[in-house]
Amino acid sequence: MGINKFLIGAALYSFATLVGAQAIDEKTKAIANDLMDKASQSQAYSIVESLTTEVGPRLAGSEAEARARDWAVKKFKKMGFKNVRVDPFDVPWWERQVESAEIVSPFPQPLYVTALGGSVSTPDGGVTGEVAIFPNLAALKAVKDGGLKGKVVFIDELMTRTQDGSGYRVAVAKRRETAYESARVGAVGALIRSVGTNAQRFPHTGQMRSGENRTEPSVPTAALSAPDADQLVRVASRGKPVKVKMTIKTESRPRAQSGNVIAEIPGRTKPEEIVLIGAHLDSWDLGTGAVDDGAGVGIVMGAAKLLMDNVRKAPDRTIRVVLFGSEEVGLVGARAYAKQHKAELKNHVLIAESDFGAGKIWRFDSRVGQGGLEAIAQMQAVLAPLGIAPGSNQASGGPDMIPMREAGVPVVGLMQNGWDYFDLHHTPNDTLDKINPDELNQNVAAYAAFIYMAAMADTRFDRDEASFD
Amino acid sequence: MGINKFLIGAALYSFATLVGAQAIDEKTKAIANDLMDKASQSQAYSIVESLTTEVGPRLAGSEAEARARDWAVKKFKKMGFKNVRVDPFDVPWWERQVESAEIVSPFPQPLYVTALGGSVSTPDGGVTGEVAIFPNLAALKAVKDGGLKGKVVFIDELMTRTQDGSGYRVAVAKRRETAYESARVGAVGALIRSVGTNAQRFPHTGQMRSGENRTEPSVPTAALSAPDADQLVRVASRGKPVKVKMTIKTESRPRAQSGNVIAEIPGRTKPEEIVLIGAHLDSWDLGTGAVDDGAGVGIVMGAAKLLMDNVRKAPDRTIRVVLFGSEEVGLVGARAYAKQHKAELKNHVLIAESDFGAGKIWRFDSRVGQGGLEAIAQMQAVLAPLGIAPGSNQASGGPDMIPMREAGVPVVGLMQNGWDYFDLHHTPNDTLDKINPDELNQNVAAYAAFIYMAAMADTRFDRDEASFD
Repeated sequence: MGINKFLIGAALYSFATLVGAQAIDEKTKAIANDLMDKASQSQAYSIVESLTTEVGPRLAGSEAEARARDWAVKKFKKMGFKNVRVDPFDVPWWERQVESAEIVSPFPQPLYVTALGGSVSTPDGGVTGEVAIFPNLAALKAVKDGGLKGKVVFIDELMTRTQDGSGYRVAVAKRRETAYESARVGAVGALIRSVGTNAQRFPHTGQMRSGENRTEPSVPTAALSAPDADQLVRVASRGKPVKVKMTIKTESRPRAQSGNVIAEIPGRTKPEEIVLIGAHLDSWDLGTGAVDDGAGVGIVMGAAKLLMDNVRKAPDRTIRVVLFGSEEVGLVGARAYAKQHKAELKNHVLIAESDFGAGKIWRFDSRVGQGGLEAIAQMQAVLAPLGIAPGSNQASGGPDMIPMREAGVPVVGLMQNGWDYFDLHHTPNDTLDKINPDELNQNVAAYAAFIYMAAMADTRFDRDEASFD
Repeated sequence: MGINKFLIGAALYSFATLVGAQAIDEKTKAIANDLMDKASQSQAYSIVESLTTEVGPRLAGSEAEARARDWAVKKFKKMGFKNVRVDPFDVPWWERQVESAEIVSPFPQPLYVTALGGSVSTPDGGVTGEVAIFPNLAALKAVKDGGLKGKVVFIDELMTRTQDGSGYRVAVAKRRETAYESARVGAVGALIRSVGTNAQRFPHTGQMRSGENRTEPSVPTAALSAPDADQLVRVASRGKPVKVKMTIKTESRPRAQSGNVIAEIPGRTKPEEIVLIGAHLDSWDLGTGAVDDGAGVGIVMGAAKLLMDNVRKAPDRTIRVVLFGSEEVGLVGARAYAKQHKAELKNHVLIAESDFGAGKIWRFDSRVGQGGLEAIAQMQAVLAPLGIAPGSNQASGGPDMIPMREAGVPVVGLMQNGWDYFDLHHTPNDTLDKINPDELNQNVAAYAAFIYMAAMADTRFDRDEASFD
């Protein structure tokens, strides 16, 4: 950063601080506080209950995801939202059909596995090979091309449990890359220790590297539950070669229909300016998608409904709730939204997504311009009684926010406690009973107050470096 | 009870109290204490690790159970036990092959199920029927013969979590009887809420009523995991008929080979008198049989080995360790043992089984005659520092002890804390990582001290009502 630019920045900042004192007026704050008080009676839990019961699992591009869109449209309308509609888009479709694995020798026994999203099938009769164990993906990458002909690769990397999910970003690399790296070295199949933090016998599914790279050579790849990964390591520790048989059958089609469901509370004085909150509607097939991301759906729908029911005059800006389709298979809905709404992205004043389970929010991050910082600080102060601390101005804002964030839209991240999130994430065990309604409603309180204040703030939040031209 | 008998009883009791002061001498108690001190270095955990790793699941009558016997014989011999042998017997054999269920309407989605042990198969293509929900088995029993033609029965009874396992005795009735009661009312299939206490998405298997009643008409019957049972109830709560499809394929043969593995530390002065401790070697097929009953195997082998390695002179009586086969399918090994060893049952001075997981022992029960009560009280005093309280004189002694107990053999029950046991019991999640080595070794301490004192006690424990003639 040059001196001049720095001075301009500092000047802008002082100006923002100066005008910021009125960024959010006292009446707005009082109403935000009132919404927080009423959040314990929100509909969030009953929304998650409805989605996970009446639809259940809803894989990207599936008939079940279509039923989820129908559910969402009906629910939004019944709740009184306006401009309810579906933005359709296409998505590659993939489905698991058969998945099993077993130790053939020296100690025959079954292993619990699940295919990774995008995995190819084994030939009829499965594949059998000697296991080659690697501590991490980097060690596999060090093997020369064709160096593991006929073997079954196993990446045994552990994931670190963290509150902010930082362990995931490290662990997920093996899920994305192992299938391709294993093909490169000539393996016939691959296993990874699940990307997860629990010691329950659930393997975690999740998408391999997708998008334009889908046609690269790969091998059938599955995740082992943590106890099975432990077991495979113990069996190998006896010093004899370990042979594993894998049988994976999947199907895929290049194109299926998906869509984003959109609903609004139209703004009163600046209806063209949008405060967007989102979650994703699709889920993996193994669980019922309760914490990922039924919880987010409940939180954002519940928060907007709470506002609608308790604020006499609609807020100045439009509140837009977006339930993204096909998040799990590579943010396909989010990319479609950013493309389809390119022209109005500059009117997206502030956006946030709830997609990290049902745990309490503990930190308020943002990524806004200098002109919005004072308003953010005032929002943070309002939300503080919920146990939410001010965070950084480097919010990522949730996965479905990435394409818009990268396009320059200002972002808020209401960071949830994800300590237990990866115990359930992408497993059969992601079911409604894992959600604590009180913690869910703490999220509703935060979102409701946040969107109201964002829609009423006198300032905008435009990022200083952004350009939508 | 008549007055005379009461007086005689009282007189006997006083006599026992009188001689009891010397029932276990101070040197014996000192050695028992020394064994307790050394238990933290026992081999128990490594024994469980070896069994669950090198054999894994070991279903009654299977080739895997035969491998477990080979493992046990080899292990016992290597550890220095004498008279190591297998008592073979026959067992009916049953195996699951395919199991799936799904809600067909109104909200299509999969359900996680596992077939109950002994379940028959569905016809090709499965069965589909409307679900009839009952709160418990008694409610199903109240339905008239043929009253649920074409339906799928669902028994939604919850199990109470308890320390002593008393909730199991109530809950298990539905597992035993539902298949037969459902056939009686004309149903095409049956589901039960798992006999278990956890909210993880694991269905719990377990044996239906077995033995001579195996040929009764029954329907394919499976257990739902708790979250799936919750889900089925929620789906039904919407008021529309719920249709479920079940596909169960199992195989059975009337006869397969099983066996009990026996090993001894021969007694020095009264080798014909036997103190028996047992566990069962077989397991269900879903997990690796770590808490049920690898833990018991580790505890009893580990305790006898600890005694062998740390007591210079062999105890007066013989210590016999029995690893029973085919416990899970109806105490088949235990019944075979009681029959095959009928002639020497009167020389079984005291017996106990470890088959309630790996939790700490908290209570010392017995079922002995008046002449043995003082020795029991002295043992209880020695074990007290382990956190073990004196219990009743109505011990059941563990499932494999039942046939011998019913024949009149004196029994001890070292009661484990089973608070969490039914979270894992008969599920895929019964794996080694669930065992706490320190808690396991508390069990070893108790068993080692107990068997040493029982083998050295001056008194016998013969039950007053017993007759082996």
